[in-house]
Amino acid sequence: MSETNVLEFETLQELLLQKRYAEFIQEIDKCNPVDAADLIALFPEDQVSRVFRLFKKDVAAEVFAELDPDLQELIIVHMTDREIGEMLEELYTDDAVDMLEEMPANVVKRIMKNATPQTREEINRFLAYPEESAGSVMTSEFIDLRKNMTCEEAIARIRRIGLDKETVYVAYVTDQKRVLEGVVVLKQLLFANPQDLIGDIMNENVLYATTHDDREKVANMISHYGIIALPIVDKEKRLVGLVTVDDALEVLETEATEDIEKMAAILPSDKPYLKTTVWETWKQRVPWLLLLMLTATFTSTIITKYEAAIGTYAILTAFFPMLMGTGGNAGGQTSVAIIRALSLGEVELKNVFRVFWKELRVGVLCGATLAVATFVKVMAIDFHFQMYSTSPTGQVQNNLIISLAICATVFSAIVVAKAVGTLLPLGAKKIGLDPAVMASPFITTIVDTVTLMIYFTIASALLGI
Amino acid sequence: MSETNVLEFETLQELLLQKRYAEFIQEIDKCNPVDAADLIALFPEDQVSRVFRLFKKDVAAEVFAELDPDLQELIIVHMTDREIGEMLEELYTDDAVDMLEEMPANVVKRIMKNATPQTREEINRFLAYPEESAGSVMTSEFIDLRKNMTCEEAIARIRRIGLDKETVYVAYVTDQKRVLEGVVVLKQLLFANPQDLIGDIMNENVLYATTHDDREKVANMISHYGIIALPIVDKEKRLVGLVTVDDALEVLETEATEDIEKMAAILPSDKPYLKTTVWETWKQRVPWLLLLMLTATFTSTIITKYEAAIGTYAILTAFFPMLMGTGGNAGGQTSVAIIRALSLGEVELKNVFRVFWKELRVGVLCGATLAVATFVKVMAIDFHFQMYSTSPTGQVQNNLIISLAICATVFSAIVVAKAVGTLLPLGAKKIGLDPAVMASPFITTIVDTVTLMIYFTIASALLGI
Repeated sequence: MSETNVLEFETLQELLLQKRYAEFIQEIDKCNPVDAADLIALFPEDQVSRVFRLFKKDVAAEVFAELDPDLQELIIVHMTDREIGEMLEELYTDDAVDMLEEMPANVVKRIMKNATPQTREEINRFLAYPEESAGSVMTSEFIDLRKNMTCEEAIARIRRIGLDKETVYVAYVTDQKRVLEGVVVLKQLLFANPQDLIGDIMNENVLYATTHDDREKVANMISHYGIIALPIVDKEKRLVGLVTVDDALEVLETEATEDIEKMAAILPSDKPYLKTTVWETWKQRVPWLLLLMLTATFTSTIITKYEAAIGTYAILTAFFPMLMGTGGNAGGQTSVAIIRALSLGEVELKNVFRVFWKELRVGVLCGATLAVATFVKVMAIDFHFQMYSTSPTGQVQNNLIISLAICATVFSAIVVAKAVGTLLPLGAKKIGLDPAVMASPFITTIVDTVTLMIYFTIASALLGI
Repeated sequence: MSETNVLEFETLQELLLQKRYAEFIQEIDKCNPVDAADLIALFPEDQVSRVFRLFKKDVAAEVFAELDPDLQELIIVHMTDREIGEMLEELYTDDAVDMLEEMPANVVKRIMKNATPQTREEINRFLAYPEESAGSVMTSEFIDLRKNMTCEEAIARIRRIGLDKETVYVAYVTDQKRVLEGVVVLKQLLFANPQDLIGDIMNENVLYATTHDDREKVANMISHYGIIALPIVDKEKRLVGLVTVDDALEVLETEATEDIEKMAAILPSDKPYLKTTVWETWKQRVPWLLLLMLTATFTSTIITKYEAAIGTYAILTAFFPMLMGTGGNAGGQTSVAIIRALSLGEVELKNVFRVFWKELRVGVLCGATLAVATFVKVMAIDFHFQMYSTSPTGQVQNNLIISLAICATVFSAIVVAKAVGTLLPLGAKKIGLDPAVMASPFITTIVDTVTLMIYFTIASALLGI
C-alpha cells in the first residue's frame, strides 16, 4: 500500500460519505485494477460490497480477481443469483477456480448453481487437477488457429475472439482434434505478409507442458525460455489451457517463500505475513519447535554419558556452543545451497557424486581454515588471558590438549556437516520428499549429535578420562 | 540440461566430426536460442567458436546473449573487429552491458573500439548506472509514439521500427522532450478504430520507475501489477528505457537466491551452484563461519563463569543443546519470516509496532507450549527412565528443580528469541543494511548467549549455587 493510495482512499471515502457517486466513479475509473482492489480492502467491511457495486461491469471482474478471498466472499453473499452468474462468465477460469477453492461449501454451492452448464463443467474439470499441478494454475482462455489460415484471417480471428482472452500476443495452432501443432506470436503476424499461411510461419518446435506437470516446472520453463505463455496439453497432446508469465511469476514467488519457510522450520502458509493471525502463526511454527526439541534428546544422552568427565573438566563444556554452532552453520550452508540449486533446476539427482565430491573438498578447506583459526584463538586469546580457570593439574599441558581436541573436532564436524548437508536434501528428493525440509534446523540436530560424539571421543582419549 | 539436449548434442557432434555442415545448420536451426546456448556449452572449448560461427546471423546474437560469460569471451577473442562491431549492433543494450560487465579489461577495450560512436555512448551511459539499479537492468530498445498519431499510424510505426525492439506489445507515448505521457498496449491498438487518436486511447495513469530505483522494486512492481514491461525514466521524467517481465523474473530469482544465501550465512554469488569452483565456494562460506566462531566467545565466557556449578551439577549441561537449539530455531523462524515479508513488500518499517506486538504474542504462545511439553518430557521420560544419573543429594527434589529451571528458560528464551528475531532485521533495514544478513546464524549467537544467561541465573537461584 503506497502513500498515494492512502491519500486516494481518504478522498474516495469523503466522496462516498457525501454521496457524490458520480465523482467517486470517475475517480476509481482512473485506477489500475490492482490498486482498486487495494483501495477496496481499506474500506470498513460493511461498505465493501457497496463500493464494489460502483465499479463498471467490465473492470469489476478484473478488480474482483485481485481481492483477498474474505472480501470476495463478503461481496458474493451480497450479490443476486443473476449477478453471480454474470460475474462468473467474466472471470478467467484460473481466477474463478482460485476463488472457489477458498470459499466455504455453501457459497461454492450457490456460485455453481448460477453458472451456465458449460462454465460449470469447465470449472469442475479445472478443480479436479491436483494441487500445485500445471492444470491448477492454467486458464482456458487461449487463442487457437488453424494451419490453413492466412495471417490476415488469423489477425481477423484474434480481433474477433481476442477481447476476453488472457493474452492476445501468442496463439496456438491446433488440428481438428485440438492437438497442439505449433505456436505463432502476434509479432510474427504483424511482420508477415497478409497472405502467408499460418502453417508456413508457425514454429513447430513448440514448448509445452502437460496438465499433471508440477507448476514449478512450468514456471521454470517460462522463466528459462523467457516466453510470454506456455501451452498446457492433456495426455493426448490436446491443447487445454495456457499459463501466462504473470502467473509464472506468482508461482515462483510462492515457491521461493515456501522453500524459505520450510528451511527456517516453519510450516508454509499462502497468506502474507500481516494477514495471518497470531494463532495461525503459532500453528505454523510450534510443530517444528516441538519436534526439534524432542530430537535434542540424542545430544542430552551423549552429554550425560560423559557426566563424570564433565565434573572433572568442566572447561570442556565452555566450547559446546561454538562447536555445535559451527557444525550447524557449516551443514546449513551446504544444504541450503543444494536445496536452492535443486529448485532452480541447476542441480539434478544424477549430479549427486559431483556435488558430494565438491562439498567434501569444500568441507576439508573450510575445516582446515577453521581448525587453525580456532587453535590460534583458543591458545592465544582464551587461555592466554586466562579467560577460563582450569582443571587442578598440568594447566599448560591440559590447555594444549584441550585446544587440540577442539581443533580436531571443528575439522571433523565441518567435514561431516558438509556431507550430511549434501546427502539429506538429495536423499529427500530421491525418495520423493521435499528437499527444503532438510535444511538447517533438521541438519543441526544430526550435526550436533555427531559433533558431541567426536568431541568427547577425542577429548577423553587425549585427556585419558 | 534435459535428456533430449544430450541426445541432440551427440547427433550434432557426429555431424560436425563428419563435416556435414549443411545438415548441422539445419539441425541447430530448429533449436530455440536458449537450447542452442545450452548445446554450445556442451562442446569442447576449442570447438565452441567454430560451432557458433555456423549459426545464422539473425539468431547468432540471441544465442550469444544466452551464453555464459566465459564462452562469450572465448567467442569474442576469435572474432574479427568487424564481426564484433556487427554483433554489438545486434545485441540489446541490456545484454551488451551484461556481457561487458563480465569481460576482462582488454576484451572490453577491443569491443568498445569496434562500436559505433552512438552505441559506445549508449553503452557507457548504461554502464554508469549503479549496480542493482533499474538503470542496470533496463534496455533502450522501446517503441515510442506521439499523442497526435492515429492508431493506424501507430501500427505502421510499430511495423517499421518494431523488428529489433525488445517488445512490440507495449508502446510508450512521449512528448517532443521525450517526457513520458502515457502507455498503449498492442491489444488496444488491435481493437481500436484505425482513425482513433493515440492521445484518446492511451492510459495516462502510466506506471513507471526511475533509473536509480532498486531493481527489486521494479521487479516487484511488474509482478504486482502483472504487466509485460515497466518504462524507466530519468529525473526529468524523460523515457530512457524499459524493463520487461522476463528480466523481472530473472531479477526476482536472483534476489531470492541472494536472500536465501545470506540467511544461510553464505556470501552471495551470481554463478549457478555447479559452475562455482571449490575455492570460490570456500570463499563464499568461510568468512561467516569464522565470524560466527569468534562471536561464540560470549557463550564460552558465560559457561566459564559457572564452571564451579557445572562441576557439581554436570547434569545441567545435558540440556545446553536443546535450550540453545530451541532458542535459535524460534529466533530464526521469526527473522526469516520478516526478512521474506520485507523483500516481498508485505511488511514495511512503519509496521514495526504491529509486527513486534504480533511476534510477542506468538512468542508467549510458543514459549508456553514448549515449556509444558519440555516439563512433561523431562519429568516423565528423561528422569523417569533414569536417563541421567543425578547429583549426590535430594534426587527427586533436584529433578523437579532442574525441570522447572529448564521450562522457565525455554519460555523466556523463545520470547526473547522472537523479540530479537523481529528487531534485528527491521533495525538493519532502518539503518540501510540488508535485513537478510540478520537471519538464523547471526541471531543464534545472540540468542545462545541470552539463553545461557537466563538458564544459569534461574538454575543457580533455584538450586542455591
